[in-house]
Amino acid sequence: MTSEPTTQVVVDGLQSSNFDRKQFEDIRSGGISCVHATVVIWEDARTTLDILGTWNRMFREHSDLIAMARTAADVREIAASGRIAVILGFQNASPFEDDLDMVQVFWDLGIRFAQLTYNIQNHVGSSCYDPVDGGVTRFGSYVIQEMNRVGMVVDLSHVGPRTTREAIDISSRPVAITHANPASVYPHPRNKSDEILRALVERGGILGLAPYPHLTGNGPIDLSQWNELVLRAIDVVGIDHVAIGSDSSHGWDDDKLQWIRKGRWSHQVQLGPATADRQGWLPWPEFFRTPADFPNLVEGMSQVGLAQDDIEKIIGGNWMRMFEEGFAPVAQLSR
Amino acid sequence: MTSEPTTQVVVDGLQSSNFDRKQFEDIRSGGISCVHATVVIWEDARTTLDILGTWNRMFREHSDLIAMARTAADVREIAASGRIAVILGFQNASPFEDDLDMVQVFWDLGIRFAQLTYNIQNHVGSSCYDPVDGGVTRFGSYVIQEMNRVGMVVDLSHVGPRTTREAIDISSRPVAITHANPASVYPHPRNKSDEILRALVERGGILGLAPYPHLTGNGPIDLSQWNELVLRAIDVVGIDHVAIGSDSSHGWDDDKLQWIRKGRWSHQVQLGPATADRQGWLPWPEFFRTPADFPNLVEGMSQVGLAQDDIEKIIGGNWMRMFEEGFAPVAQLSR
Repeated sequence: MTSEPTTQVVVDGLQSSNFDRKQFEDIRSGGISCVHATVVIWEDARTTLDILGTWNRMFREHSDLIAMARTAADVREIAASGRIAVILGFQNASPFEDDLDMVQVFWDLGIRFAQLTYNIQNHVGSSCYDPVDGGVTRFGSYVIQEMNRVGMVVDLSHVGPRTTREAIDISSRPVAITHANPASVYPHPRNKSDEILRALVERGGILGLAPYPHLTGNGPIDLSQWNELVLRAIDVVGIDHVAIGSDSSHGWDDDKLQWIRKGRWSHQVQLGPATADRQGWLPWPEFFRTPADFPNLVEGMSQVGLAQDDIEKIIGGNWMRMFEEGFAPVAQLSR
Repeated sequence: MTSEPTTQVVVDGLQSSNFDRKQFEDIRSGGISCVHATVVIWEDARTTLDILGTWNRMFREHSDLIAMARTAADVREIAASGRIAVILGFQNASPFEDDLDMVQVFWDLGIRFAQLTYNIQNHVGSSCYDPVDGGVTRFGSYVIQEMNRVGMVVDLSHVGPRTTREAIDISSRPVAITHANPASVYPHPRNKSDEILRALVERGGILGLAPYPHLTGNGPIDLSQWNELVLRAIDVVGIDHVAIGSDSSHGWDDDKLQWIRKGRWSHQVQLGPATADRQGWLPWPEFFRTPADFPNLVEGMSQVGLAQDDIEKIIGGNWMRMFEEGFAPVAQLSR
C-alpha cells in the first residue's frame, strides 16, 4: 500500500486523537483514506457546537489534506482526490442531553455515528463499567428510533452488555461496534461477548477491531498475536462484518486522560479501561504505533493467508457498505 | 388558624405552582408560613440560573409577602415577620447535569432540596415510571455524598423503588419524600411501599403527604378519606415522621402539563401519573382546592382526635426538625 489514492477506500472506523495536521499526515502516510473521528467524549450540546466550529476551521485550514464526509459518495469522492474523508461522530449521547430533537440537529451538522454511552450511565443507557446495566431507557429507545430515521449509525462500543443487546434489537438498521474486540480473545469490560457479536451480525452490523493496548491483552502484543485476534474475530462474526477501528488516541496529555476517564462526574481518580498497575496512557504496540503503521495490519493479514478480497473487506469494504446503508435518511432509502 | 404569624411555623413541604403574587396570597391566607417551592422540573444548569434570576426579582417585588430561607433560623425569622419563608428546591437532578461540582454551586445559590429524578432515568438513578430501576448510579452515589456534605436534602419523591431504597442507605443524613403517600393506602407508582417508608424512618427521614388527586385514589376523595390516609401514614411511619407536602400545582395550562410530563425527551404523549381516561389536570379535592384551604387539613386532624401536639408536628414541627438537621454543611454540624 502507498499513500496514493486507489479505488480501495481504506477506513479506520474510529480514531479519538487530539486531531491536528500531524495526526492527519500520519493517517495519510498510513494509506488511510477515511477516518471516523471522535468529536465528543462528555460534551453537552453547546460545547459540541464549539467543537464543530473548531472542526469547520480545521477543514478550511487543511483543505489539501482533509474534507468532511456526510455520505458514502462523499467518502469515495474525497478519497479519490487523495485527501482523507473525515466522518464525524460522538462517543457519547451527551450532546443530545435529554432532548430528542438534538438527534436531527446534529445529523444536520454532519454527525454520522453516535455511541450510546461513554463510561457511565446516561439518559440513554448503561455503560460497560456500570455495576448494574438497566438496559436501554425509554428515552434511549426514542433516540435509537430517531437515529434510525435520520441516518445516524448507533455505535455500541463502551456500552454495557444488556444495553448493547437491547439496542441491537431496537434498531431497525444495522449498528456498529466501532472499536472493541471479542471478549473470547481477551476478556475486558470493553470487549464484546460472542453472543452479542452474533446478534450484531444477524442484524447486519460491523465490528471494528482495535489494537488499543488495554483491549488486546494484559501486556503488549506483537503482530502475530494481533493476527490471531483478527482470525478469531472472523470466525465469530464472519468476513463481511469485521473491520478496523483502531481507537488511535494521540496528542493527549495525562490531565486530559483523567478528563477522558471521568469527565466532571467524580472527584476521585477513575481508571476507565485501565488497572491500578497500568493507569496512564499505555505504549501502542510496535506494529501500530500510530495510524502511519496501518500497512503493518494489512501486511499481517497477508502473512496469515487472508485473500486480497477478504483483506479489502476488512480494511474498508465492510465499513463502506455500512456507510451506504447507514448515513441516508430512512425516507430516502425507501423511495 | 388565622393568617397571623404564630410561634408555630406551618410548612407545606412541596408546592409546584406557577408562582406569582396570587399563589403567595393563597399560601398566606391558608396560614402557611413556609413553603418548599419547586424551581426545576427538567431544566439544565444554565436554564436554572434564569429561573433563579426570576425568583430573585420575585423576592424583591413581593418582599412584603415572601423571603428566601437558606436555614431553619431564616424560616423562623421570616415566619415571625408574618411573611412566607420560601425554600427553593429541585424536582430533578437535571441542573447538576453530569457535573458533581454543581451540587455546591446550587447550594450556594440557595437550593436546599433536590429530588434525584423526575419521571425518567437520568445520570443519578431511575424514576418511579421506568420499567427497569437500576438503582443509584456511580455518579448518583457521588451526588448524594456531596449533598450530604454541603447540606442539601435528598428528596426521593418520583424516584424508583430500588433507587429510593439505595439512596436511603447511601445518605449519611436523613432524607425526605416530600410529596407522596403510602402505597398501602393507594397503590400508585408515585406512592411508597411500607418497606421503603420504614427504611426512611429508620434513618430519620420525613414523608410529606400529598392531597394531589392522582396520588389519593382512583377518583376524588373527601376529607374523611384524607383523614384516614393521614392516620394510616402515622401508623406506618410514626408521628415524628409525617408531614404535609401538598404538591399544589396551580397556574399551569395544558401545554405546560405536557412539558411537565415529558420535557424534551419524547415526541409522543406521556401520561406521567395519569391514566388514559384521566389525562389532564384533575380537579383538586373540595377540602383542598388551593393552599388557602390548608386550615381544612388541620381541622380534619382535630376531627379524628389527633392531639394538638401531634398536629403541630405534622403541619410544621417535623419539617422544621429536618430543616435544622438538613440545611447546614456537615462540617458545621460536627463543630
